[in-house]
Amino acid sequence: MNALIVYAHPNPRSFNKALLDTAQQTLEEAGHEVRVKDLYAMDFAPVLSAADFEALERGEVPTDIAREQQDLLWSQALIFFYPVWWYGRPAILKGWVDRVLQHGFAFHAGPDGVEGLLGGRKALIVITAGGSKAEHEATDAVDLIHRPMSEGTLGFCGIAEVDVLTFWEVPSATDEQRAAMHADLRTRLATLLPA
Amino acid sequence: MNALIVYAHPNPRSFNKALLDTAQQTLEEAGHEVRVKDLYAMDFAPVLSAADFEALERGEVPTDIAREQQDLLWSQALIFFYPVWWYGRPAILKGWVDRVLQHGFAFHAGPDGVEGLLGGRKALIVITAGGSKAEHEATDAVDLIHRPMSEGTLGFCGIAEVDVLTFWEVPSATDEQRAAMHADLRTRLATLLPA
Repeated sequence: MNALIVYAHPNPRSFNKALLDTAQQTLEEAGHEVRVKDLYAMDFAPVLSAADFEALERGEVPTDIAREQQDLLWSQALIFFYPVWWYGRPAILKGWVDRVLQHGFAFHAGPDGVEGLLGGRKALIVITAGGSKAEHEATDAVDLIHRPMSEGTLGFCGIAEVDVLTFWEVPSATDEQRAAMHADLRTRLATLLPA
Repeated sequence: MNALIVYAHPNPRSFNKALLDTAQQTLEEAGHEVRVKDLYAMDFAPVLSAADFEALERGEVPTDIAREQQDLLWSQALIFFYPVWWYGRPAILKGWVDRVLQHGFAFHAGPDGVEGLLGGRKALIVITAGGSKAEHEATDAVDLIHRPMSEGTLGFCGIAEVDVLTFWEVPSATDEQRAAMHADLRTRLATLLPA
């Protein structure tokens, strides 16, 4: 299958990047086609601007957005890798969402409600976090991190099957724990996209 | 008192901008000093980069970030105006949070936990939304929109007193409803910062 990976971490030596590499290798070894969008390396412009809205009204799509949309249409599975910052997505990824998932492309809002236009795809969200799961559960904050992307974004666009894999306390994880995280990721990928 | 307003909407003819104007006027008439950061007009660079992390390690602060931090230190009240996009903050505002609220400036994370460093300030978050309150309540999504900014960001930095004012269904609001929204805002401002 065609897997599109969107990756948003500024540090090429990060654990997040190591997970990305594992995913790419695992998927390619299973015979899937993989495209990786490294938003930092692409210097992706994340600010949804008045010019974007004006282009939309003229029925035009900015070149950088059109490229992302073509890759989305090519994809049969979507995988995101990013760190959680301030209970949210890094700005460069939030801007990818803001700009690429345009009305008329990713969803249609009509008098009878919203219709997602990217249905039929599977998705996996892989998040790395500094804090602990226990601390986020205690403050009822796990959903705050997951649902804006899983439901509020991908679900809104019609992608019903979204798996979320969050790795907690990454900075203090031992080598053994990191190895287990890589193994977790491989398992989830095998479920998402069997060989 | 000194009120810092951070505003993030791409359209100067938006209702969000009209609310900003009401707030600025209301606060100034009540004798407060107001500074407005119009992130779009400033062309604020929202991408937290490897260069930012490297500067932080050297104990340096990029010029554009230092300016924002000085205004934060000057402020006694913080007010945010933005639309909700994809259950989250627009990328340009998310990037302001990602870049400006640095470790060592806005919070300190030590062995005994996190200490917010911006305490003693009051805050108001003003959000404009396209959807309805009923629909967000039905899917338990109101918190997803509010808490990442109120608790996960401002609360994390030690700002305990955060008021959130969300205006729902803005695109279809009548003139009368919009006037009531402006009045709501003025009331909340008078509570936040009495004359």
